[in-house]
Amino acid sequence: MKVLVLNSGSSSIKYQLFQSDNWQVLAAGAVNRIGEPHGDFQGRWRDEGGWEHRFELVLPIAHHGAGLELMADRLRESGVLADLGELVAIGHRVVHGGEAFQRPTRVDEGVIAVIRDMIPLAPLHNPANLEGIEVAMRLFPGVPQVAVFDTAFHQTMPPAAYRYALPENLYRQHRVRRYGFHGSSHAYVSRRAAALLGQAPRDCHCITLHLGNGASAAAVRGGESIDTSMGLTPLEGLVMGTRCGDLDPAIPFYLAKNLGMDNQALDDLLNRRSGLLGLCGVNDMREIHRRIAQGDPTAVLALDVFCHRLRKYLGAYWIELGRLDALVFTGGIGENDAVVRERTCAGLEGMGILLDEVANQAGGEGERRVSRLESPVAVLVIPTNEELEIARQTLEAVGG
Amino acid sequence: MKVLVLNSGSSSIKYQLFQSDNWQVLAAGAVNRIGEPHGDFQGRWRDEGGWEHRFELVLPIAHHGAGLELMADRLRESGVLADLGELVAIGHRVVHGGEAFQRPTRVDEGVIAVIRDMIPLAPLHNPANLEGIEVAMRLFPGVPQVAVFDTAFHQTMPPAAYRYALPENLYRQHRVRRYGFHGSSHAYVSRRAAALLGQAPRDCHCITLHLGNGASAAAVRGGESIDTSMGLTPLEGLVMGTRCGDLDPAIPFYLAKNLGMDNQALDDLLNRRSGLLGLCGVNDMREIHRRIAQGDPTAVLALDVFCHRLRKYLGAYWIELGRLDALVFTGGIGENDAVVRERTCAGLEGMGILLDEVANQAGGEGERRVSRLESPVAVLVIPTNEELEIARQTLEAVGG
Repeated sequence: MKVLVLNSGSSSIKYQLFQSDNWQVLAAGAVNRIGEPHGDFQGRWRDEGGWEHRFELVLPIAHHGAGLELMADRLRESGVLADLGELVAIGHRVVHGGEAFQRPTRVDEGVIAVIRDMIPLAPLHNPANLEGIEVAMRLFPGVPQVAVFDTAFHQTMPPAAYRYALPENLYRQHRVRRYGFHGSSHAYVSRRAAALLGQAPRDCHCITLHLGNGASAAAVRGGESIDTSMGLTPLEGLVMGTRCGDLDPAIPFYLAKNLGMDNQALDDLLNRRSGLLGLCGVNDMREIHRRIAQGDPTAVLALDVFCHRLRKYLGAYWIELGRLDALVFTGGIGENDAVVRERTCAGLEGMGILLDEVANQAGGEGERRVSRLESPVAVLVIPTNEELEIARQTLEAVGG
Repeated sequence: MKVLVLNSGSSSIKYQLFQSDNWQVLAAGAVNRIGEPHGDFQGRWRDEGGWEHRFELVLPIAHHGAGLELMADRLRESGVLADLGELVAIGHRVVHGGEAFQRPTRVDEGVIAVIRDMIPLAPLHNPANLEGIEVAMRLFPGVPQVAVFDTAFHQTMPPAAYRYALPENLYRQHRVRRYGFHGSSHAYVSRRAAALLGQAPRDCHCITLHLGNGASAAAVRGGESIDTSMGLTPLEGLVMGTRCGDLDPAIPFYLAKNLGMDNQALDDLLNRRSGLLGLCGVNDMREIHRRIAQGDPTAVLALDVFCHRLRKYLGAYWIELGRLDALVFTGGIGENDAVVRERTCAGLEGMGILLDEVANQAGGEGERRVSRLESPVAVLVIPTNEELEIARQTLEAVGG
């Protein structure tokens, strides 16, 4: 049987087709720039002999429906999905499930209505996710559709972690609380961490650091998220590529009053011109390392602030967990940046983190331990795989 | 010799007169509701025989000058300051010193101009502080005036701790950074902690928790603040009586968009209707405990969120310090609330915090240790004394 995973953005659709018995990726690709004069469609598939084929097409793609049709044609023609009957389910990434969805959910009209109701909480993402679901329901009638929510993994947080110190009616009536995101990633790497340590997930206390252009930390106790750094929106928490993360909540008022900025300008500032980009002018950590090597003090500062913030969350979540078995790095920076890992772990030998400098510097692509064997806390690098996590949860949701 | 300490608010002046050789309080009091139809002036003084006298007057007090004249008359008439020549200096609490003032500073016209320049950073406090200074300079000509800044103690923070992940020009041109407040309190209790442990201040690593109606935490390494929870303003950080503390910075935009709140309404919400008050309807922790005893779930939640936030900072600063000698509780809640102390320290035995339940519950008024003797981290209750700290620093600043 096969499971298709779709991640629909406002002008793109990414997909992966999995073989559900061994979770092999049969095909993957993306439709980009939907609705623009020059769209493109690129991807790859693996034939029965194991050969990988790649393709790239440039063509106008009018809407999400046209994009999904292109994808479906290519999956059929290439032979990886010759018969739609092989498709046991389609899993959709949905950014915001609010409090309504604690787990992956088979989509029906009621579910669609609730996801639509969440749009104020994720105005940029949920409409695009919904469009993908509705088009997929038309194009693949009879195939079960499952919504997998970025927020669902964090629904196990206790109220002490998810409530802000705001008037209660803002929570009850207006749903203002911490939700957290990157749930599929934190779920995936925390489960893998337990497996690598030979622990049952319910026994494993870990902190997972998803460090990409967006970045978040989570405290995972016995397989359940008990706290995470992103909040009502993905703006809170760690320093990100272009997002500020944590901030004195009075700062927007100060800027409005003293610089005359309106809400739109402030939103643009905090989401798109802050973070690493704001501190040093670039949002790519590899470029920041190059600039540090050239002696750029703003790049040094950007790395300092990034790592300082990470360490604050590391300490906070360690206290929440009470005991730490593993510290997990994932995401583009987490998987590839030995300096960030070293800086995050520096000087914590007394607290049980003994990094293996050679292993940490060695690089590599797979799952690996970068702490010394005698380190009480295992420091692990685990490449994330949100699509696989969505596929796995999708199959579970349809009883597979 | 004697030192007078003044703390001028927008409609009040608090004062304390110290004997500088033994730091005994000779007189203390407050002028309240300046400019209102019914002001009052209350205080106490100690005569040479050691008897304490108290007084309270109700009368209109037109302006700060009239208030300070009342105070000066009373100090002279009561005999505690019969001769102005005994006054070696007057120390003024000033809330915001920005980056200009790293230590207590003798006031001249230049200093006044710089404090005035800080008004945008502390629009509610610095103007009142300035008013007190200017009136005191007129009323006590020839007496050295010293400004002691709430922010100064935290000026030792490294850039990684004080910079937000915002565009550099907001820092360079608009002074947006973490400053921190309650500096005199954190300075006082961290120095007392070192003394109680028999350590030199430069050897003592401690976390100081100032928990009053305003609340802040600081990481103090070797006598120097290396991080603190309040930021550009006193809104950031811990849950306070009516202030929200940490928040997803996108929440004000969400409320503006979905509830139509303007900046003034949002400022009022976050500063005056949030915190403990927002969560459960009261901002007095003693009343919250009473309501918990009566089974009020919102009071339970308020305490949970308050302690959860505290523990996050405890962990964050522990990691920053690398090693912890003392955890210090001060302020009205910190000094008196055994439950908050117990909840903050719960389950951290494995990390070296062993509370002594009997000592913690015992109450008392003085400086005391509430951890077990064998606890690697000493947990201390140290009543804060910002006025004494200001007096001490004032004397130092005039070379006393």
